Amino acid sequence: MPEMGNTTPSNSSTASTRTVLLLFRVLTFVFLLIALILIATLKQTDDDTAVQVKFSDFYAYRYMISTIIIGFAYNLLQMAFSIFTVVSGNRVLSGDGGRLFDFFGDKIISYFMISGSAAGFGLTIELGRGVPSNSFTDKANASASLLLIGFLFTAIASTFTSFALPKKAN
Amino acid sequence: MPEMGNTTPSNSSTASTRTVLLLFRVLTFVFLLIALILIATLKQTDDDTAVQVKFSDFYAYRYMISTIIIGFAYNLLQMAFSIFTVVSGNRVLSGDGGRLFDFFGDKIISYFMISGSAAGFGLTIELGRGVPSNSFTDKANASASLLLIGFLFTAIASTFTSFALPKKAN
Repeated sequence: MPEMGNTTPSNSSTASTRTVLLLFRVLTFVFLLIALILIATLKQTDDDTAVQVKFSDFYAYRYMISTIIIGFAYNLLQMAFSIFTVVSGNRVLSGDGGRLFDFFGDKIISYFMISGSAAGFGLTIELGRGVPSNSFTDKANASASLLLIGFLFTAIASTFTSFALPKKAN
Repeated sequence: MPEMGNTTPSNSSTASTRTVLLLFRVLTFVFLLIALILIATLKQTDDDTAVQVKFSDFYAYRYMISTIIIGFAYNLLQMAFSIFTVVSGNRVLSGDGGRLFDFFGDKIISYFMISGSAAGFGLTIELGRGVPSNSFTDKANASASLLLIGFLFTAIASTFTSFALPKKAN
């Protein structure tokens, strides 16, 4: 029964890997939370016309906030699973099912996060051209940067969960 | 000696996986070639002012063309390796080294490709707002779409090469 988790020979290495993964997920969660606050509160009022510009006026920022929320929800779920594991001593998804969930979860969510960050940066750099540095573009860049850092953590986590995959041909 | 490639029990499944992977890489190569031509020839002249706008006037498109070229070069290399394998009967990078190269290559290149595509889409949708559909935004969208399709193939290839990874704890 090699899928029992706690009876595999690589038990201690698996446990430390899980600790590192949890650390990455907590950090990603925190970065995404700040990124979410920054982008959601993004607004600027034109001094002359009193027209207010918000994140929701731009498709790229709306997509970016979607990817932040997706990443946020995924990391919350993974953290909940980890806490359940610590409290109850059992994994929610054990064996191959859990490893496949981690692998595809990290992979797909990390693609969402990098695409949101790239869309945000791509728009902000054009919006900021020819105008002096202002709090609008600064906040948008900060949010996209935090999303990018969150992506990097998730991409590293994804590498771990790829190596933890069950072998295709047993 | 489980790393001899041709002597592993999963030989036939490995061979068919390699054929599918090669097909994905050829398709990605073709899509990226068309995407590259479309974005590189992107230009529009204003009828009134005779000012010409090109892809290189926008940072997002410059980043996008970089990611297309990176993906193009990577797929060219992988195709050259495959042709060498067919001709000589030996893999250029055999065993664990080859599998790690494929894994990290597919993973990193696919992240570049999705980020380039997202940056391109994010800018094009803002450039096209309020103006009627024109050949500039149509070509830019077509190029980003082809890059996105190329990304999807690479992401699927990346899933294959993740499952083909050597187990961490032997």
